[in-house]
Amino acid sequence: MEKLEALKKSMKEIALFINNAIDHIKEEEVEKMIDILMKAYHDHGKRKILVMGAGRSGLVGKAFAMRLMHLGYNAYVLGETIVPRIGRDDIVIAISGSGRTRLIVTAAEAAKAVGATLIAITTYPGSPLGKLADIVVTIPGRSKVAKEEDYFARQILGIHEPLAPLGTLFEDTCMVFLDGLVVELMRRLGKDEEEIRQRHANIE
Amino acid sequence: MEKLEALKKSMKEIALFINNAIDHIKEEEVEKMIDILMKAYHDHGKRKILVMGAGRSGLVGKAFAMRLMHLGYNAYVLGETIVPRIGRDDIVIAISGSGRTRLIVTAAEAAKAVGATLIAITTYPGSPLGKLADIVVTIPGRSKVAKEEDYFARQILGIHEPLAPLGTLFEDTCMVFLDGLVVELMRRLGKDEEEIRQRHANIE
Amino acid sequence: MEKLEALKKSMKEIALFINNAIDHIKEEEVEKMIDILMKAYHDHGKRKILVMGAGRSGLVGKAFAMRLMHLGYNAYVLGETIVPRIGRDDIVIAISGSGRTRLIVTAAEAAKAVGATLIAITTYPGSPLGKLADIVVTIPGRSKVAKEEDYFARQILGIHEPLAPLGTLFEDTCMVFLDGLVVELMRRLGKDEEEIRQRHANIE
Amino acid sequence: MEKLEALKKSMKEIALFINNAIDHIKEEEVEKMIDILMKAYHDHGKRKILVMGAGRSGLVGKAFAMRLMHLGYNAYVLGETIVPRIGRDDIVIAISGSGRTRLIVTAAEAAKAVGATLIAITTYPGSPLGKLADIVVTIPGRSKVAKEEDYFARQILGIHEPLAPLGTLFEDTCMVFLDGLVVELMRRLGKDEEEIRQRHANIE
Repeated sequence: MEKLEALKKSMKEIALFINNAIDHIKEEEVEKMIDILMKAYHDHGKRKILVMGAGRSGLVGKAFAMRLMHLGYNAYVLGETIVPRIGRDDIVIAISGSGRTRLIVTAAEAAKAVGATLIAITTYPGSPLGKLADIVVTIPGRSKVAKEEDYFARQILGIHEPLAPLGTLFEDTCMVFLDGLVVELMRRLGKDEEEIRQRHANIE
Repeated sequence: MEKLEALKKSMKEIALFINNAIDHIKEEEVEKMIDILMKAYHDHGKRKILVMGAGRSGLVGKAFAMRLMHLGYNAYVLGETIVPRIGRDDIVIAISGSGRTRLIVTAAEAAKAVGATLIAITTYPGSPLGKLADIVVTIPGRSKVAKEEDYFARQILGIHEPLAPLGTLFEDTCMVFLDGLVVELMRRLGKDEEEIRQRHANIE
Repeated sequence: MEKLEALKKSMKEIALFINNAIDHIKEEEVEKMIDILMKAYHDHGKRKILVMGAGRSGLVGKAFAMRLMHLGYNAYVLGETIVPRIGRDDIVIAISGSGRTRLIVTAAEAAKAVGATLIAITTYPGSPLGKLADIVVTIPGRSKVAKEEDYFARQILGIHEPLAPLGTLFEDTCMVFLDGLVVELMRRLGKDEEEIRQRHANIE
Repeated sequence: MEKLEALKKSMKEIALFINNAIDHIKEEEVEKMIDILMKAYHDHGKRKILVMGAGRSGLVGKAFAMRLMHLGYNAYVLGETIVPRIGRDDIVIAISGSGRTRLIVTAAEAAKAVGATLIAITTYPGSPLGKLADIVVTIPGRSKVAKEEDYFARQILGIHEPLAPLGTLFEDTCMVFLDGLVVELMRRLGKDEEEIRQRHANIE
């Protein structure tokens, strides 16, 4: 038996899943999200972007929010200390593989109630979060709540049961998707790595 | 020009980097880390695991710490509310691509001073963090501080300058590596997804 | 005019409010809370305590959760990385001056749904959070949402409009109340400061 | 014996300590801090304020940073997701009762190295943190590391050993001092509670 077989096999599976997910990206969804973010950039003194997610999806959201700040956006993360009032000009990005995480759905409802633009990043466009959103960006994954609906894993990897547990495939794919989105935004905003570096925290 | 070209190209690049990184994993390093974690599991009421990292590396560390908890470990994250006293029986896992992040090196020195076992996850084994550590696990990436040393990107992708800015390649590869490590630990500890699910937060 | 007049006057007002609040503590409410916490201590390997609150109330909750850990409890904070599954044997402590903070009420409902014991710390026992709770501990304050109901400030300080804005009086009084509760628990559990110190984080 | 005697006695002690601390505030120190904050406000699009502290002092810092944001400042908290690059025009506020918390001293050194203005809030002006700072604001308390130097508790309360353990007196006094400072800033900046409310988070 190969050494570290489970580790290597699952890394390979995740890398393959991410790679194959590229073909499942719905371009028109992503273009809508980029469109909003491009517009927000040009009056970035005013429009705020609030990113939210629970558990590991929340961590992926934080990694994206940090890069939004590096790009020059007024980005914030729900649950942290510095969270401003959100209004009708602002953008809320909610991340949930299942689209059913209760606190995220509740917060998304509050975002809609104040008139913010809600972008949902989820595997299930038909989920409660997906239905609330102005824009849905569909990212392949499994839902930790709906084992039986594991069609993406089957469709994308040709397997029934991936090695990585629960939401891992969604979270990792979402992380890489949002990192790709950062590169796309850099390109469209005419920013290079040096500018990103200039906004990176220097006390850490 | 293809739609969303930069996004897709950089996702492909990251997926490829992760996939190729598998061949650069140093098995003996990872086996040492697993060995410590396996031992820690069997007296898991006593040994604590403290995970630390700054910025996006810190978020990757949190994602791993959450899974360690799902596996049944007493895991903690530096900077959060619930951080216990660490002693000679405990394990500190420090994540830093460059191995030079100042607060992490300072915290790692404190960990060594109290006699804890220090595991460093870094691209540079010869860095200050790498030198402090009892065990180094080398993960390919670029360092955001040392542009000229970008040998992994060159070696692994055959390119000089990856699309994704700063530490992205390290962070995403590290995330997937640690998720692979979780699968390896599940296998060796005889745990299935259901057990992981049983420890997953239900208020979120 | 005295130097730093507003600063000194408002500090004096807050200190007086805290001092007078002692007479408004409902002993039977607090005894019920202590009773639960004493019982939880004696099988502290099993019963978990999850503390939750939004904004500054959440920070007060974290300060208390840290001390619960120093006392030897298995304490956790909603929204942090390490949050375990909560069940019928566990205790959830929710802090909200108004008792109407939406995400906290939603999380409290989830806690009740899994059968946990819910303790609400609030100014308004008749609020949605208060009604959900198994035990309410009433702490004087103003509610930032219900200006007209400012009866505590009137009653306790004999003034209509305190200097400190929004929830400040509740938050500071709650902080000191919970710190007093820690001293009470130390006394009843037979713990001295040295034992607290032994569990205090040493990597910080 | 009175019911809840230890709780009530320690609350009374803390309230008295806070009240007596007002007379120990060094006006010229606080005026210097206010002066910097007033100047920062008037070009608040540019100057950033980074607040830092470990453990419960860090929580007190977060509570203050939140209010700085409510006042219209660009405030940030070390360790959270959204932390910008700090430069010579920026302000760093470091909170540590003992003035010796290692990670805070290290971060304060980094702040000085980039030329930021460093404000230390501490019980010990002669501590490593105090010596680094451009401005020290002395707040009475005990240090959890230096039991023998407990002169403030003796001087202010006429007692040798306060009931509340470790840094409690410093933390609670610091919380109320900073809340008083917020009222002073409101007065000087001509802001009323309604303006604070307008910047308070509405998704929570």
